[in-house]
Amino acid sequence: MAPVVPRSGDAVFANVERVNAELFTLTYGAIVRQLLTDLEEVEEVNKQLDQMGYNIGVRLIDEFLAKSNISRCVDFKETAEVIAKVGFKMFLGVTATVTNWDVEGTSCSLVLEDNPLVEFVELPDTCQGLYYCNILSGVIRGALEMVSMKTEVTWVRDMLHGDDAYELRVKLIKQVPEEYPYKDDE
Amino acid sequence: MAPVVPRSGDAVFANVERVNAELFTLTYGAIVRQLLTDLEEVEEVNKQLDQMGYNIGVRLIDEFLAKSNISRCVDFKETAEVIAKVGFKMFLGVTATVTNWDVEGTSCSLVLEDNPLVEFVELPDTCQGLYYCNILSGVIRGALEMVSMKTEVTWVRDMLHGDDAYELRVKLIKQVPEEYPYKDDE
Repeated sequence: MAPVVPRSGDAVFANVERVNAELFTLTYGAIVRQLLTDLEEVEEVNKQLDQMGYNIGVRLIDEFLAKSNISRCVDFKETAEVIAKVGFKMFLGVTATVTNWDVEGTSCSLVLEDNPLVEFVELPDTCQGLYYCNILSGVIRGALEMVSMKTEVTWVRDMLHGDDAYELRVKLIKQVPEEYPYKDDE
Repeated sequence: MAPVVPRSGDAVFANVERVNAELFTLTYGAIVRQLLTDLEEVEEVNKQLDQMGYNIGVRLIDEFLAKSNISRCVDFKETAEVIAKVGFKMFLGVTATVTNWDVEGTSCSLVLEDNPLVEFVELPDTCQGLYYCNILSGVIRGALEMVSMKTEVTWVRDMLHGDDAYELRVKLIKQVPEEYPYKDDE
């Protein structure tokens, strides 16, 4: 039997079921608008988007592991590269750059120059505190938690706030040494 | 100059930007869950999903006309075929069948056997009145309104309610004879 070889982001993306990016973008916009109407406070919307993302991330990791043939990363550095090059590509069709590592190798930035979530979006003055793409930070946090990495994910740069790119800071808080993310009795 | 030829759904779908279908499905699921939490009444959720879809359809028609090279359908019958074969394919990656025309040619059904919105979805007992995919009826209604067709779009069959397919009834209410959907002063 031939060994299972991890696939590149391009190869995986070419082989997954896909839908139109504009439909996705507009649908995501509809969620954000709905939350702004229902929750009123921008800070609450940020939290809710992050929570939605978390719930999606804990589901999406299964598809990611199944389709990418990636089993286990040797360390957090490899994990970050895999998220940037395979994960982003596989789900959003774009890749991120990993940069700004701290000396301990437990904190890095994922930089996105192209972001399909924000096409046609401009933040009105009343929403300057909104992290429109906060669902992404939640997805990463949720997915990593399922492979035993507890992380904090925060926005450092955001083009909707006038920055020159999207930069997500991913900080590894705790790595639980576990063989498999699920317990039998769960 | 070569004439502009309408493109097939497959050709259009192959050339648009796309994102992972599972991400879309889970994101859509997050909206529905959020609405169920916020609005409580299933009937209100149906209305809100339809309204969100309407707002999306009003925007999506532009991308549709630009990418499909379709300018004007001769009648409602052709319009229905274009939605089923090009529209659904272009946005969701699946096609629908047009059937059950009434004698006047103003009412038909779009039947979907494959529906990427509902992967992994089961309705709990408390949500039996929910039209989970109601965003779709809104999208069609909104998009058609922008090309001067006022329609009613309702669900006749729904696999989440135990039916053997998804069937959307599209009824043409009024066709406004207009050359172009936008007015200059808008």
